[in-house]
Amino acid sequence: MIPKGFFFNAVSCGIKAPDRLDLGLIYCPQEAVCAGVFTRNLVKAAPVLLGQEIVKKKVARAILVNSGCANACTGERGLEQAQTLLKALAQELDLLPDSILPASTGVIGAYLPLEKMLPKLRELGQGLAPDKYELVARAMMTTDTFPKVVTQTVEIGQGQGQILGLAKGAGMIAPNMATMLAFILSDVEIPAEDLEGLLKEAVARSFNRITVDGDTSTNDTVYALASGKSGLSLTAGSQGYESFKEAFIKVCRDLAYLIVKDGEGANKTVCIKVAGAKNEDEAEILAKTVANSLLVKTAIFGEDPNWGRILAAMGRCGVFFNPYRVNIFIGPIQIVKDGLGLGTKEEQKAHEIMTKDEFDILIDLQMGHAQAEIITCDLSYDYVKINAEYRT
Amino acid sequence: MIPKGFFFNAVSCGIKAPDRLDLGLIYCPQEAVCAGVFTRNLVKAAPVLLGQEIVKKKVARAILVNSGCANACTGERGLEQAQTLLKALAQELDLLPDSILPASTGVIGAYLPLEKMLPKLRELGQGLAPDKYELVARAMMTTDTFPKVVTQTVEIGQGQGQILGLAKGAGMIAPNMATMLAFILSDVEIPAEDLEGLLKEAVARSFNRITVDGDTSTNDTVYALASGKSGLSLTAGSQGYESFKEAFIKVCRDLAYLIVKDGEGANKTVCIKVAGAKNEDEAEILAKTVANSLLVKTAIFGEDPNWGRILAAMGRCGVFFNPYRVNIFIGPIQIVKDGLGLGTKEEQKAHEIMTKDEFDILIDLQMGHAQAEIITCDLSYDYVKINAEYRT
Repeated sequence: MIPKGFFFNAVSCGIKAPDRLDLGLIYCPQEAVCAGVFTRNLVKAAPVLLGQEIVKKKVARAILVNSGCANACTGERGLEQAQTLLKALAQELDLLPDSILPASTGVIGAYLPLEKMLPKLRELGQGLAPDKYELVARAMMTTDTFPKVVTQTVEIGQGQGQILGLAKGAGMIAPNMATMLAFILSDVEIPAEDLEGLLKEAVARSFNRITVDGDTSTNDTVYALASGKSGLSLTAGSQGYESFKEAFIKVCRDLAYLIVKDGEGANKTVCIKVAGAKNEDEAEILAKTVANSLLVKTAIFGEDPNWGRILAAMGRCGVFFNPYRVNIFIGPIQIVKDGLGLGTKEEQKAHEIMTKDEFDILIDLQMGHAQAEIITCDLSYDYVKINAEYRT
Repeated sequence: MIPKGFFFNAVSCGIKAPDRLDLGLIYCPQEAVCAGVFTRNLVKAAPVLLGQEIVKKKVARAILVNSGCANACTGERGLEQAQTLLKALAQELDLLPDSILPASTGVIGAYLPLEKMLPKLRELGQGLAPDKYELVARAMMTTDTFPKVVTQTVEIGQGQGQILGLAKGAGMIAPNMATMLAFILSDVEIPAEDLEGLLKEAVARSFNRITVDGDTSTNDTVYALASGKSGLSLTAGSQGYESFKEAFIKVCRDLAYLIVKDGEGANKTVCIKVAGAKNEDEAEILAKTVANSLLVKTAIFGEDPNWGRILAAMGRCGVFFNPYRVNIFIGPIQIVKDGLGLGTKEEQKAHEIMTKDEFDILIDLQMGHAQAEIITCDLSYDYVKINAEYRT
């Protein structure tokens, strides 16, 4: 079930290959409460700079997203182009330009081909329909191999709310420097500050807990819109709020998981879980260091339970732990006890687990009770191929 | 010319493939002044833990190095094995065990095959000769494709001094988790504290300024020995000291360069130079972030002047700069001016430069006068292949 109060459409402007959808629109007939979370990269794309201003109004009427061109490192001209596009769409839909949230993904340093995009805005607006959300997910794709759509229904005493999430490609994983974009739509009524707080918490527990290549993009953007059309009304602490929050976070986590699953060249989706840490921050740093280690990622590709690489990666991240207390498990198989290997027989069993597409690696520090998880993927020949064959 | 006062030999114990040299010895008939610099990884191999203690005595008689087994993550048993080996060699050479500096490189988590190594110590000691230094360089190799030997002669008023440097494999680049090892030998007479200071400065400017895969090993060790046999006597500030220091640093930088050149799967050796920074620390952080970015490294492999990836990597490292002041050059070709691309014509010229085996990437922040360089290599299919095909 799709949240009420949203209309969708997408068209092909020829920014990417001909006939590929590359411009998508999410439209709300009435004002929706909005929140946004953006890349922490110092180098921010034009749509990020604009979006950061627009979300401050806390309400919006639309999201306009294009793929094939990130509109990043494009200076004043890039900002002007993005504004021209928003103004033209606003006129078409009879909206204020600053009620449309922009998002772009694709090549850095290229300018938006406005001559291809502006003539398509009428078609985009006229074809809006409540059931075309998958088209928008497709229009966001760069090297993604499938559109990423997740839905959740929340039953709360007074009624039912719907959450829809759309996302594309992980980190800077695409040959043309794609970026992570996600839009979370819901039909509950919720105060803007609560939506904002919820989005921040959800992003911290989902999109900020994944990695494909460790490269943060210039365009990362997550927008949340709440239309209020379900009749369900929630505020932080109200009855049913926790259920909604749980469902909202689940949508984000499911999308984040799909992003890693579709990481460039990725064959395996692996959850690196660090437990027994003194605090969650340290657990996260350790898990991220292991998840980004090239040697760990190539070992995962090679289905090799090479625990020495895991310990060595942990040792260089600046977090203190006792190497001779560490236990390591691949799935249910323990291969390291108190920092020492349990031998080739256990490693052979662990190798069998690693032949699967999805598995967990659990690292127990035996120091405290905090834990954190990072979802990562393997580093394969195809990652190198996809990212080396760019433009030349 | 080789420094006076050193004898060398290497033998094959069968730790690696049969007939490959895997145990090397550097021997001084009389005490040499020594200094050591070790991995900052929290997980330290047994020979690192022992070496750290032994260098505190500031004099040594020998370096014993093996490849094929890192003796890391091996606990008490690993320490005992390393001590057993040093004691046996000390007896053979009539030395004190704590006058021998140990170093190991190879698989993590495996125990030293003492039953293969101990019977070879006599042969190792009896075959010592001043001209067998290349054998030691070979005995240190894991996935290295060539032995790394560098020499420098320093002419100073009162006479001539010689410096010899031996090194192996960069970072944790080998399929069996190899490590960076380097030994710098000289025949000048120099106080231990000056040699120590010099070694620290040289390492900071050479081995700490390279990267292959960003993974710090558990075994990184650099030892410096000064035999005093040339008759040249130097102290910090004395006549000729600066010439010696320059030559010493050059040996370290040349070895560091060879290590990157021989990085696993590397086809291209690239110097990332960040200039115009506020201070050297920030320049180094920026250069390291670019040098370790998978997207930059795959673009180098693909000979693609993808400057957006360079800017995006810089933007995520936490150092402040103004993206719209940045200039970027590939070799002599400027491709970015004030944060904006100079177009495809310049990028085509830059691509031509990138088809070479070695080139520089200069990033000018136009903020200050500090600069730093990091030597890196491309990320190729072969890196993935070498590191995925381990044990399984």
